[in-house]
Amino acid sequence: MFDVIAFDADDTLWHTKRLYVNAQNKFAQLLAAYHPAEWVNQRLSQTEARNIEHFGYGIKSFALSMIETAVELTEGRISGRDIQALLDLAKTMLNAPIELLPYVKATIPVLSACYHLMVISKGDLLDQETKITRSGLGDYFQAVEIVSEKDRQSYQRLLKRHSIEPGRFLMVGNSLRSDILPVLELGGTAVYIPYETEWLHEAGTAPPQGQPGYYTIQHIGQLPALLERIHSSQGRK
Amino acid sequence: MFDVIAFDADDTLWHTKRLYVNAQNKFAQLLAAYHPAEWVNQRLSQTEARNIEHFGYGIKSFALSMIETAVELTEGRISGRDIQALLDLAKTMLNAPIELLPYVKATIPVLSACYHLMVISKGDLLDQETKITRSGLGDYFQAVEIVSEKDRQSYQRLLKRHSIEPGRFLMVGNSLRSDILPVLELGGTAVYIPYETEWLHEAGTAPPQGQPGYYTIQHIGQLPALLERIHSSQGRK
Repeated sequence: MFDVIAFDADDTLWHTKRLYVNAQNKFAQLLAAYHPAEWVNQRLSQTEARNIEHFGYGIKSFALSMIETAVELTEGRISGRDIQALLDLAKTMLNAPIELLPYVKATIPVLSACYHLMVISKGDLLDQETKITRSGLGDYFQAVEIVSEKDRQSYQRLLKRHSIEPGRFLMVGNSLRSDILPVLELGGTAVYIPYETEWLHEAGTAPPQGQPGYYTIQHIGQLPALLERIHSSQGRK
Repeated sequence: MFDVIAFDADDTLWHTKRLYVNAQNKFAQLLAAYHPAEWVNQRLSQTEARNIEHFGYGIKSFALSMIETAVELTEGRISGRDIQALLDLAKTMLNAPIELLPYVKATIPVLSACYHLMVISKGDLLDQETKITRSGLGDYFQAVEIVSEKDRQSYQRLLKRHSIEPGRFLMVGNSLRSDILPVLELGGTAVYIPYETEWLHEAGTAPPQGQPGYYTIQHIGQLPALLERIHSSQGRK
């Protein structure tokens, strides 16, 4: 049995990648007079990767990286109006309505009746907090943890803080790198739900099928049945 | 006696306001061809206040507000090179060396021998975390809490999470609005250490002198003596 089930938020509970893809398309359109979209996207990704160290994750960082890329790719000829359009784009992203993933709205309340649920997410503090409120799911989670990086150390700290044994902890998410691998390393259980597209900087090598504690499902609606399977197989041991 | 002494970080443990003042001066210089410095500063403050709702606190938000103000005040004529200068300014701020306030380096280790110490700070998650690490003080704090807003609710949540009774909690900080008033409201003790300059959006009305639980000192080096006074007066009751 698990004491706590923790969920990643972006692209596990609600769509987020779509916001970024949509913004990237608008960004490429804005620079269409200068460069082809493919090159614009590639350079934007490079700027983002370079800036994570300074800015961390989230929409504000993305906005600063878009602006930096726009200046570089236009050799400084970008207009003030276009810079303003990028700032407006960032605000639109921050205020976008929350689109829950399929089955989330029905499954989370069911699970919360039997388990302590938690959100473990990374990104901008304020943005993540308001999204949880706006999602309407806030009341189902006993704890919400926003972290700057999801690695072995940060999970260890969180488990200690909440007095959770790794063996009784289950993490659900769409990123092998951030949600799955560090949790398995610590001896926890991890359920991978691939999202429709993967983040480049979240890519990771999937653990071999059959690795203890590692499960994959197609959508969150399959989680209750998986939990039953895990429990009954543990009961047999 | 107090179970926990919590410290604000920016302009309580280390200088931060200076970074912003310095950046504002550079910003005004950049726009000197368009507007007098006073007007530039006033407009930047207005943009920041308007954007807090979207962007929250911290250097990334400040950078986005500088860029927005620059576009507005130049009616879009700001050059790409100047926008890049603003991005570089933000990165310089994020990587600036930590300048501890006087007496901090000597006082924190002394206090940590007798009390559980905590940091409660707001701003960008990653920036605040790396500053605590870079300050060299990280090991003296049992817990570090970065929050998006410091109000009655957020203190209530923190005290509950750490199982601290308000009557046994002491908060030290330079903001009446964020560090002092909400803590007094909850029945805690609050020590106000005014910083050399005040943030506009952190201004608040000081509680009357003599209000129970409210103390003012000139610098953190006076805290150990104040704690002794509080303890001995409580012993007399």
